Amino acid sequence: MSAKTQEEKAREQLIDLAAEFYDQFARGEIPEMQLPTRTKSNIEYDEDSNVWVYGDRTSTRSANSVRGARKLLKAIYTIDFLAQQLDQDRSSTLRELYYLSESWDNEEAQFNDQDESNQLVEDLEIVSEVTREDFHMRPEESGATLMGPIRIREQTRRGEREIHCQDDVGEGGYQIPNNPDTIEFLEHDVDFVLCVETGGMRDRLVENGFDEQYNVLVVHLKGQPARATRRITKRLHDELDLPVTVFTDGDPWSYRIYGSVAYGSIKSAHLSEYLATPAAQYVGIRPQDIVDYDLPTDPLSDSDINALESELEDPRFQTDFWREQIELQLEIGKKAEQQALASRGLDFVTDTYLPERLTEMGIL
Amino acid sequence: MSAKTQEEKAREQLIDLAAEFYDQFARGEIPEMQLPTRTKSNIEYDEDSNVWVYGDRTSTRSANSVRGARKLLKAIYTIDFLAQQLDQDRSSTLRELYYLSESWDNEEAQFNDQDESNQLVEDLEIVSEVTREDFHMRPEESGATLMGPIRIREQTRRGEREIHCQDDVGEGGYQIPNNPDTIEFLEHDVDFVLCVETGGMRDRLVENGFDEQYNVLVVHLKGQPARATRRITKRLHDELDLPVTVFTDGDPWSYRIYGSVAYGSIKSAHLSEYLATPAAQYVGIRPQDIVDYDLPTDPLSDSDINALESELEDPRFQTDFWREQIELQLEIGKKAEQQALASRGLDFVTDTYLPERLTEMGIL
Repeated sequence: MSAKTQEEKAREQLIDLAAEFYDQFARGEIPEMQLPTRTKSNIEYDEDSNVWVYGDRTSTRSANSVRGARKLLKAIYTIDFLAQQLDQDRSSTLRELYYLSESWDNEEAQFNDQDESNQLVEDLEIVSEVTREDFHMRPEESGATLMGPIRIREQTRRGEREIHCQDDVGEGGYQIPNNPDTIEFLEHDVDFVLCVETGGMRDRLVENGFDEQYNVLVVHLKGQPARATRRITKRLHDELDLPVTVFTDGDPWSYRIYGSVAYGSIKSAHLSEYLATPAAQYVGIRPQDIVDYDLPTDPLSDSDINALESELEDPRFQTDFWREQIELQLEIGKKAEQQALASRGLDFVTDTYLPERLTEMGIL
Repeated sequence: MSAKTQEEKAREQLIDLAAEFYDQFARGEIPEMQLPTRTKSNIEYDEDSNVWVYGDRTSTRSANSVRGARKLLKAIYTIDFLAQQLDQDRSSTLRELYYLSESWDNEEAQFNDQDESNQLVEDLEIVSEVTREDFHMRPEESGATLMGPIRIREQTRRGEREIHCQDDVGEGGYQIPNNPDTIEFLEHDVDFVLCVETGGMRDRLVENGFDEQYNVLVVHLKGQPARATRRITKRLHDELDLPVTVFTDGDPWSYRIYGSVAYGSIKSAHLSEYLATPAAQYVGIRPQDIVDYDLPTDPLSDSDINALESELEDPRFQTDFWREQIELQLEIGKKAEQQALASRGLDFVTDTYLPERLTEMGIL
């Protein structure tokens, strides 16, 4: 669906929501809003879409208390603002929304802190079934960069821009915009997508010409990836049918980065179908690699150990591969960064490690 | 001086340094290396260059102890690696250097942790009087982005790229490469440079067309700016004679961001002439603005108060303006973010705040 249509849908959904409150009032009912319960125990694996989604449990926001009524009032002011924003084809950040509420005439509608406004926007995403991007709410920080053999067309406020993500960009690559649904994929020679956790490794791959040699589209994740980065990764997989691989450090936080690319996160379980790429394969440092390649390591900290143990319980990591690797890591008590591969020389990662792993995985 | 010439100079300086150790050995002397003492009390304001530089006190690294000898051994292995790297026109990250040392034949030369290798590279910058970038040492994270009416030419490993930083880029802007000395400024219509702390505000300015309306080159600082971002800002000022302004939040950490753009930092005092833009003017949120515009605020935390008090002692903030503003802030006990301007509406910053401030400052 094109971005324009999505925006129209977003506006309609918002207005429907407000109309529902109106109808509830008109029928003499106490207005309320139903939301899925947003806790770990209420996310489930959806066999059809292969991602984690909310379960059946719901919570109700009702105006039957002052606190509840205030929440719905804030929702109505926010809907009004968002509908106006879409009407004028403008956008704003989550932080601006929080501050902007200070200009609202009704003091009861103003947010107490940014957690409250962030939470409300997420609630509206869930009930309206459109995304924050469709409301034109921008994140504070933009997505990362692309480098590889693909030509894209970005619809900007200043007109269309056609950019080849190797020939028309500097060494820094193509900067992914906040809303990557403004991008259209034109022709490409990409064989697969490689999402890379750190800037140092991204630069290593580009310097070594890995993107040119293997027709790889290198996506820089910049640590825990922004929504824009996850979204474009998903679109590359779905629309161009490209295999997606994720190359991270070998520690529990990096496994979560892979998890959020592949399966989405609890916080954004309502967006899994929009953001998650369940077919994404892990090509990051495995505890097995620490042993096999004798990589330089750091000892696991207490918080690393806790995170690994909680991953053993995490529904996203219930596979033989992850159980084996996590148990091995707890046993050896070590973690390694992706740049630790440099202990075998600067070309080891592109000449040996990635080609071997990617061949094993059937990508090369 | 062109990048090529700088690299040759870097290589020569490194080899001279190694030759000096050789000569010391040959003369039967214990090898040593002199370095300026790198503490706050040994940085001074240089009247000629208008930046903070090291004072006269020096420390000596000598091989007259096992510890000192090991340090010099590590320096020699590092020099050998860097000279080779320059010879092959390759580059690496600071983290890769640390890991790479594990492949060195002499175990005594291997680094114990990354602080040690980072420190050594800084030492080599100081004694060789060339920069890390000239050694082809890349940072972990790249610089930020540019958006504005300028055409640049970037020398990449894959050939030259000419890019107009409005017409040839998406809404994300032009990604500054790790070493911005590979950039040549071609024609431009820029009237002044505006460095912006947060991504949210950077996007606001671009959405509102501030760069087009006032011929501004918007530089995103992304918090504490990377060296690449500070370097390109300095070059824009020095080579194109453009006024530079810095737009940040109104809190002590943001004043330090301004300070590092304008005067450099203690950690990189040896690089002030390369990185600092002493003529940069502060257009960020002032405590005065919190009062004048009645902005939404947060209370100062204890660490904010400590940071403000230490700024009152910091040689970079010894001006009437900063003393007044910092004292006012301690008095009102509040801080405000740049996005707090949204409490007056999304256009307040571009229609009112910046035009008023920039006119007062004589920039508009």
